[in-house]
Amino acid sequence: MKKKRISITDIANALQVTPSTVSRALNGGGKVSEKKRLEIISLAKKLGYRPNPIAKSLLANRTQTIGLILPEFTHHFYSRVLAGIESITSKAGYQLLICTSNENQNQEIKSTLTLLDARVDGILATISKMNDKFEHIQEVMDSGTPLVLVDRFSEEIETPYVISDDFKGAFSAVDYLCQIGCKNILHIKGPDNLSTTFNRFMGYKEALRKHNMPLKEELVLESSDPKLVEKIRLCLTRHQVDGAFTYSDYLAFEIYKLASQLKIQIPEELSVIGYADEPISTYISPTLSTVNQQPFEMGAMSARYLLNKINDPEVALEVKNLETKLMIRESCKVVETQS
Amino acid sequence: MKKKRISITDIANALQVTPSTVSRALNGGGKVSEKKRLEIISLAKKLGYRPNPIAKSLLANRTQTIGLILPEFTHHFYSRVLAGIESITSKAGYQLLICTSNENQNQEIKSTLTLLDARVDGILATISKMNDKFEHIQEVMDSGTPLVLVDRFSEEIETPYVISDDFKGAFSAVDYLCQIGCKNILHIKGPDNLSTTFNRFMGYKEALRKHNMPLKEELVLESSDPKLVEKIRLCLTRHQVDGAFTYSDYLAFEIYKLASQLKIQIPEELSVIGYADEPISTYISPTLSTVNQQPFEMGAMSARYLLNKINDPEVALEVKNLETKLMIRESCKVVETQS
Repeated sequence: MKKKRISITDIANALQVTPSTVSRALNGGGKVSEKKRLEIISLAKKLGYRPNPIAKSLLANRTQTIGLILPEFTHHFYSRVLAGIESITSKAGYQLLICTSNENQNQEIKSTLTLLDARVDGILATISKMNDKFEHIQEVMDSGTPLVLVDRFSEEIETPYVISDDFKGAFSAVDYLCQIGCKNILHIKGPDNLSTTFNRFMGYKEALRKHNMPLKEELVLESSDPKLVEKIRLCLTRHQVDGAFTYSDYLAFEIYKLASQLKIQIPEELSVIGYADEPISTYISPTLSTVNQQPFEMGAMSARYLLNKINDPEVALEVKNLETKLMIRESCKVVETQS
Repeated sequence: MKKKRISITDIANALQVTPSTVSRALNGGGKVSEKKRLEIISLAKKLGYRPNPIAKSLLANRTQTIGLILPEFTHHFYSRVLAGIESITSKAGYQLLICTSNENQNQEIKSTLTLLDARVDGILATISKMNDKFEHIQEVMDSGTPLVLVDRFSEEIETPYVISDDFKGAFSAVDYLCQIGCKNILHIKGPDNLSTTFNRFMGYKEALRKHNMPLKEELVLESSDPKLVEKIRLCLTRHQVDGAFTYSDYLAFEIYKLASQLKIQIPEELSVIGYADEPISTYISPTLSTVNQQPFEMGAMSARYLLNKINDPEVALEVKNLETKLMIRESCKVVETQS
């Protein structure tokens, strides 16, 4: 009589653990305690367990690599996102294959196909700014390759994502400027078709509304405006601007330069808050108040979501809108509390 | 009689170009003028040229991807190197697959194997700081995968490389400090086992020698020293330091902070020059003099070397020691020229 083949379930039953735990212990992935792992491996040996050839071929299909698509590394933000991702993937024994899109959709599509060709086990992606096509994303999902979106998401794509709460981040910044008494708050906004910068503009508007301050159109400038510098200068000289909130730290630096030319003191006459907590914010003088988006956490959490989906394709949809942190530094005036 | 098969050489002879030019024109890579390319393709069609099946299978083996191993993206330097590489590879129709080593040799080895598994057509690599094993590099070379080293090289590896002339870069900085009259020049040096930072120290020594200034050991500090900040403070207070040259811009920023605490004026009392021309150098006040290593050029040139080697494995060994540029900004005192 042919001896019954020992299955993962047999080992699981003998040790009173789930088959999935046995599988993870034998395949070297996922969360299994070292003690339990050794127990399982030892019993598997004793019983003469051999992996099912079909299961093995499926397993062998794994490359232990994860594809990562990011726009660029010029902004420190993305190098922090990368560090957060690596903190999780390297411990789990995954190699990252990184592609940059440079905010170019064609480049993003090529990167996606290259990563699929390299048979990555999953993909983490920040979709490029001007994305209006999603066929390549659909292709990833159709291929059964787990996908998690990072920093930017689209309602057209039903997949796990980790983004930052840009609305609340911007709201907290402008709310703070109102609280310290700013009456004319300049906002330099980013592209409207990008969810992140659009939400920052919405947060600006909502904070003004909360403080019963009118939205003055002349105080809202577009970062893409070729005459931006000239328009900031006009704003600062004509409209008694005493507060400024910019959608990026680099734009806050532009305000610093103009204020210096116009002999407007920061923070005595003008309080400034940027966005993203780039290193520049602590190097410039006075140090810049800004909104920290926790990019390391964002990377780590999106990597965890991806590993969960790799280990269990049926896992429930995980999404997260990360809290931001308002970092008040020297660029905001200090208000003496009345006592 | 069987018709003779048309070869690349036949086309080359007919058009009086080299077979290699024909091959590049037909395979879509390398430097061929658009006019010549069309001429070649048109003649190939007319003569009924079909690629040799063996050559074709070799060609089909190409993935049109290039692997890139960089230490990290925290320093702007590497994001500029990447931009330079992309400026060449994207035009040539190659996709980049990027891995980061975080200066960890095991991680570098894993990255190398992952890229070989992904069957990249060539590899660009900045070897990690503490590299003492080169088996993985040897494996790349044994596999016949073209390899170009970027920013750092080792005499143990005979392959094309593009590095920066750190010796001359440091020499030019310290020579400048001597010329403007600095007598006690502090140097904060990096790890000795890293060719780049070791050469910067050598440049410092050579510039002092040129100006007949003694090397004072108490003015040379190690960046890895846990008591570095305290030692810089002692140096600034006790040794009449009037010049400083640091192996990175970030260390120059440390000197700024201590000088501010000690009420030492930059540049009136202390001239400072950093290294690498990171964005920080233009954001801090006074703006920092520094040595620009042309990272974009470094990336672009190494990518060109790699494409040359991919297109012709027998190409002569190409190596380059890139010139640096001394960027004098507000952190160095201005000497009135005698007239």
